[in-house]
Amino acid sequence: MKFVIASQLDYEVSSPLTFLLSVRAQHCPGQEILWERFSVSLHVPHQLQECSATGTRFDRVFAEIPGLYTVRYEAEVERISERLPAGVLPVQGPETFGPEVLPYLYPSRYCQSDRIGNLSYDLFGDIRTPEEQVRAVTDWIASRINYVSGSTTNQTSAVDTLVERAGVCRDFAHLGIALCRSLNIPARYFTGYAHDLQPPDFHACFETWVGGRWILQDATRLASPEGVVRIGMGRDASDCSVCTAFGSMRLLNQSVECHAADPGFQKMTPEELAAFSVSLEPPPNL
Amino acid sequence: MKFVIASQLDYEVSSPLTFLLSVRAQHCPGQEILWERFSVSLHVPHQLQECSATGTRFDRVFAEIPGLYTVRYEAEVERISERLPAGVLPVQGPETFGPEVLPYLYPSRYCQSDRIGNLSYDLFGDIRTPEEQVRAVTDWIASRINYVSGSTTNQTSAVDTLVERAGVCRDFAHLGIALCRSLNIPARYFTGYAHDLQPPDFHACFETWVGGRWILQDATRLASPEGVVRIGMGRDASDCSVCTAFGSMRLLNQSVECHAADPGFQKMTPEELAAFSVSLEPPPNL
Amino acid sequence: MKFVIASQLDYEVSSPLTFLLSVRAQHCPGQEILWERFSVSLHVPHQLQECSATGTRFDRVFAEIPGLYTVRYEAEVERISERLPAGVLPVQGPETFGPEVLPYLYPSRYCQSDRIGNLSYDLFGDIRTPEEQVRAVTDWIASRINYVSGSTTNQTSAVDTLVERAGVCRDFAHLGIALCRSLNIPARYFTGYAHDLQPPDFHACFETWVGGRWILQDATRLASPEGVVRIGMGRDASDCSVCTAFGSMRLLNQSVECHAADPGFQKMTPEELAAFSVSLEPPPNL
Amino acid sequence: MKFVIASQLDYEVSSPLTFLLSVRAQHCPGQEILWERFSVSLHVPHQLQECSATGTRFDRVFAEIPGLYTVRYEAEVERISERLPAGVLPVQGPETFGPEVLPYLYPSRYCQSDRIGNLSYDLFGDIRTPEEQVRAVTDWIASRINYVSGSTTNQTSAVDTLVERAGVCRDFAHLGIALCRSLNIPARYFTGYAHDLQPPDFHACFETWVGGRWILQDATRLASPEGVVRIGMGRDASDCSVCTAFGSMRLLNQSVECHAADPGFQKMTPEELAAFSVSLEPPPNL
Repeated sequence: MKFVIASQLDYEVSSPLTFLLSVRAQHCPGQEILWERFSVSLHVPHQLQECSATGTRFDRVFAEIPGLYTVRYEAEVERISERLPAGVLPVQGPETFGPEVLPYLYPSRYCQSDRIGNLSYDLFGDIRTPEEQVRAVTDWIASRINYVSGSTTNQTSAVDTLVERAGVCRDFAHLGIALCRSLNIPARYFTGYAHDLQPPDFHACFETWVGGRWILQDATRLASPEGVVRIGMGRDASDCSVCTAFGSMRLLNQSVECHAADPGFQKMTPEELAAFSVSLEPPPNL
Repeated sequence: MKFVIASQLDYEVSSPLTFLLSVRAQHCPGQEILWERFSVSLHVPHQLQECSATGTRFDRVFAEIPGLYTVRYEAEVERISERLPAGVLPVQGPETFGPEVLPYLYPSRYCQSDRIGNLSYDLFGDIRTPEEQVRAVTDWIASRINYVSGSTTNQTSAVDTLVERAGVCRDFAHLGIALCRSLNIPARYFTGYAHDLQPPDFHACFETWVGGRWILQDATRLASPEGVVRIGMGRDASDCSVCTAFGSMRLLNQSVECHAADPGFQKMTPEELAAFSVSLEPPPNL
Repeated sequence: MKFVIASQLDYEVSSPLTFLLSVRAQHCPGQEILWERFSVSLHVPHQLQECSATGTRFDRVFAEIPGLYTVRYEAEVERISERLPAGVLPVQGPETFGPEVLPYLYPSRYCQSDRIGNLSYDLFGDIRTPEEQVRAVTDWIASRINYVSGSTTNQTSAVDTLVERAGVCRDFAHLGIALCRSLNIPARYFTGYAHDLQPPDFHACFETWVGGRWILQDATRLASPEGVVRIGMGRDASDCSVCTAFGSMRLLNQSVECHAADPGFQKMTPEELAAFSVSLEPPPNL
Repeated sequence: MKFVIASQLDYEVSSPLTFLLSVRAQHCPGQEILWERFSVSLHVPHQLQECSATGTRFDRVFAEIPGLYTVRYEAEVERISERLPAGVLPVQGPETFGPEVLPYLYPSRYCQSDRIGNLSYDLFGDIRTPEEQVRAVTDWIASRINYVSGSTTNQTSAVDTLVERAGVCRDFAHLGIALCRSLNIPARYFTGYAHDLQPPDFHACFETWVGGRWILQDATRLASPEGVVRIGMGRDASDCSVCTAFGSMRLLNQSVECHAADPGFQKMTPEELAAFSVSLEPPPNL
């Protein structure tokens, strides 16, 4: 399935600084970039880098001259995701988690899984398999947390959301990650473009390590798991900022788009979501 | 400089579980393991693994039979660390930080650097170079935070310590990391053996990325920077637990030792600590 | 119903200080003190005072000489409490709350009712009457929070307990108060002696303002609502410390007792607890 | 000194509810209301009440009919405050605090004085008298905390402000209260009208119990201590909301005014602020 994605960010820079932008689709298993264009206005020097641990790419921009900077990215991406019928994923316990997976089991800045073990075992401890636990976590969040634009800040954590029961996609993902980790299920943060997201914006979801695969979860129900393009991956939002500025700058405007290039693309229905897990990448060892 | 290290941990296991132990010295630049012995009582199967991102090694122990498990580790380690006279480290801004360093600039579970930017710029913003800022951060913690055994838990964070002004080595390290990151100085957690630490225990310190080198800091002043042997490295204590148990077990006893095999080893004096920075490893690109 | 209560506290004082002790039963509606004895060893001067807003009495002790201080209190108290059959309390909304009740509707140090409105309406919003909501809150706490001695500190708050799902009587009371206030039901903290509490200690419960009466709740199920003698009352534990010391002193030993003087006293059964609300005092205007 | 004060609040009510408004000046020592007018549009029934513990007055409004409600209050108030030359207040320790003062020594919802004892003794412990400590606390806040409109929410606490170093008048007051209480100096929250405040709004300050008097402090330096008219008093903002609504309503507009009726009123100069403490009321026992 092919998607055409685009984003534009307009910044006001008042004194010289460097900033890092993560808007490009990753090169990663299951995701191929057919073409891409990245530009910064004013012919500003910039440098593309990639984090070896996560694959997240970022452009380092040297904004020496105060003024308006417009960053624009466009790409066409081929995504292959896999539908796995509910129940086929093998049940694997934490004794099978290798060193690459373990970091996603530990608590992180916005996902304090170390505090909520009693709570998650109370809510989900009777469920038999990790696959079903993950599904129950996602359903619980979808039904108990209110999606309220502007209700949280970039310091809001999973524990805050658990208590205050409101948030946006970032908060839904953090809570999902924290609950899964506290159940000994590795979970990592996903940011990217999402097909026809309303209102248009970057999106955040999470992936859980179940049966030897990373499975995508969107507790907001706003995106179809087959309709996302990965930008960033990490422990939580602290690893995946769209923009990290070493100095002071101001975002004036932002636009984000993601459309299916194949006319046949359809969002998964609730019935399909109940019947299948979706993995964005093939099993690691194949 | 050679050190002989040893640790013994006695656990009571009441139902079958897997646990991960991080007690071995790392193989890493500046640290060579001359010999080591690792054993688990009861001839229990175990498996050695290494995290590729951090180099931390851990033994995965499959404790199928309830009972007492004694884990014992002994090694002799050659450590080469480098004294860098104060002022020689080049001043490098965040525009020079590569993808391997950036993760240590972001906030983490116990180091909420995203909350304390105003505070750290108030305290340390007038200091001219990152090297001097790091030194000032360490001095400030040493003089303002009370070392009080038992005053904190494993959920205590840097912000808690900043507010409550008491903690143990783990808390001193977390606060140092958080303050440095909020000043745009990458910082990472260090755990290991420390020469003649009183009372004997595993130790926690932190390393800061200054002038293209990782520089060791111990705000507790309990260990000499030249007298430590690295076990674990990560963003904070969440990456560096001595023991991660997937189930319930109880630590009954613990003993930790670290002695200099060379009779000439001497702790750095306060004057030497003021005159030199110490790096545990050579610059990354040499 | 008559109860004989006693408490003894042994303190070590190393430098001169004043401290306040709240161990005496209150003079309050429904509670009559038949006799009482209060003594401090060493013939130390002390002064009895009473807070006009809450009725809590405290003895101010001037400990000028370092040494061991033993405080001893004994009393016999007649308590009249009232059983109110479930369903008889009139349904009254917040429009009826007078100025004396309103302070118990606001959030306090350990009861952050302002953060948990969504959560409590999700859990209890469908329940029709305040009386039934209070019962549901108490049942929910009793079934979801683990009573674990030593699991919390004196800084633990209702939100902490909600997240971590463990605590002691103080924490159970704080959570009950916070949940009720967030449902617009005034709630206040109660400390006192509890009949045959195991292990013997001072006890904490809470009272809710329902149908124009203060109704006692004990989410720990450790005390019978008819078997308590009130010492302190307030917004939360910050108002009701057993000891407030203006300087440094150390509690060496503590013993607490509360026995029924009438041989016929029996703890309420679960069936009785389900069938009746218990109020410790007559309606305010009668 | 006479002040003319006025406030107008426009609310949109979409379903029947009761709300409490605290906009009236208090009747209290040092403050006499010469005349006042209070009105609610639509001839809505309302009822004036007063909290006996704090003297705060509030109007209970029964808004049965959805629509726009305009609340308007105007008054002329005579205020007598007293300038006390620095150094004249007697030094009194906590052994002198009576039951009316003690509640203001305990931690409250937004003033966690129980967490910051080490910090405040580190910063202010060497200062000799409570009067000088209070002055140092206020100066410290004024120089270290940034006044930033919109930087905080109504859940922000003193500890948050201590860490994040930004806030508005409410946050400055909460931090001052928490620091003073942790130094064993009773402190209470003050809300009211402030002469020519820019931008016009209700104002928050705090009062400290020093030498047997309540002394007004404004760490924001936005108001002159002689130029304020008291509305509310309490432990912190949780006791002093302008509006407490038992249901959902929306504030559309708000205007607040406070002008000196005597043309001779002048704000205290920095020199006068350094030379005098200001008490809004006579000593309690006279």
